[in-house]
Amino acid sequence: MTSPTRVRTLGAILYPEFELLDLYGPLEMFGCLGPELRIETVAQEAGPVRSAQGPESLARYGFADCPALDLLLLPGGIGTLAQLGNDALHEFLRTRARSAEVAMSVCSGSALFARAGLLDGRRATSNKIFFELARSQSEKVDWVEQARWVEDGPFVTASGVSAGTDMALGVIARLYGRSRAEAIATVTEYQWHTDAARDPFAAQLNQTHWLAAATGR
Amino acid sequence: MTSPTRVRTLGAILYPEFELLDLYGPLEMFGCLGPELRIETVAQEAGPVRSAQGPESLARYGFADCPALDLLLLPGGIGTLAQLGNDALHEFLRTRARSAEVAMSVCSGSALFARAGLLDGRRATSNKIFFELARSQSEKVDWVEQARWVEDGPFVTASGVSAGTDMALGVIARLYGRSRAEAIATVTEYQWHTDAARDPFAAQLNQTHWLAAATGR
Repeated sequence: MTSPTRVRTLGAILYPEFELLDLYGPLEMFGCLGPELRIETVAQEAGPVRSAQGPESLARYGFADCPALDLLLLPGGIGTLAQLGNDALHEFLRTRARSAEVAMSVCSGSALFARAGLLDGRRATSNKIFFELARSQSEKVDWVEQARWVEDGPFVTASGVSAGTDMALGVIARLYGRSRAEAIATVTEYQWHTDAARDPFAAQLNQTHWLAAATGR
Repeated sequence: MTSPTRVRTLGAILYPEFELLDLYGPLEMFGCLGPELRIETVAQEAGPVRSAQGPESLARYGFADCPALDLLLLPGGIGTLAQLGNDALHEFLRTRARSAEVAMSVCSGSALFARAGLLDGRRATSNKIFFELARSQSEKVDWVEQARWVEDGPFVTASGVSAGTDMALGVIARLYGRSRAEAIATVTEYQWHTDAARDPFAAQLNQTHWLAAATGR
């Protein structure tokens, strides 16, 4: 193609104890778009940010010097709990969501969007096992219990962890066309769950005992 | 449980232009095990390592000061090509694989294991689209074209990108029991492809045109 291509910038928002796959599942898929999309990492302060699983990722920008963002990606994770009280993050989300083409959250990330007041009057979802965490942030959100991901205007909220990868391909299909999303799924040998309404994990709503089963405690 | 639990250390090996999901899909699943498993990141030199998709991750250790590792995880990615000529990496892999309980690769990571001579006489697989890259590293490897992942002794090699996450749960089932792996899949809302022999992407063997379709070029 010889026509000039619009280059979008995706801002991946890091905070301490974020969930690895919430962030990196979507970034894998968006990263496969090639030069049409640039991925930048941002945290309250630039520098290393420890994930919930241990490994550290580098935030290239702080909130203060972060460039303009077309797309936002907000992961969840156990670190969400501390961020519910972080006004600086909420203000950053409010400011940046206003100018973003798409603002995405994964897992408990939607609890932070809700706490910042961004989802009032909108449909949204969250991870299944800790669904109440999201719901308790705002009664003005139409919380959808059964969904792999939910799109409402610029906001796209995914269910737990792995659902973010399916959501990312859904957003790629919307912005770049279905065939691009399918090609990326093929390259990454990913069986894309294309139906946002199909939710194999809805039966686990608020079944927090699964966490103990996973950690063996 | 009051019985003392053995704590394993997993070493995630980073190099420039590694594929994000090759690394972080498995680390998500292993990270959900809780205190029974510690994840450490290692690269030739400690410090920031840029991924193929752009974002940087931090290697906590260099090859020289890396602690003992029970499990190895070697991602693939476009950066594999440069590492095929990196003797220091091959020597690190040879030394560490010798003492590891399980040595895992994802995607083109198996080309690096093969180049280091570690897979001679063994069955192994690699990503589908660039399968020839792996095959061309050694004729003494029994390369399996159709497999989600392949286990042969301590070596476990996964097919492309997303297959690493299925492999990780397979290794978790082997080391910690099937119910732990299933609980982790539930917590992360991941539909685990449990059959290592089932390969939905085998038909794409060496179909490199998919990469152009993904990047839109």
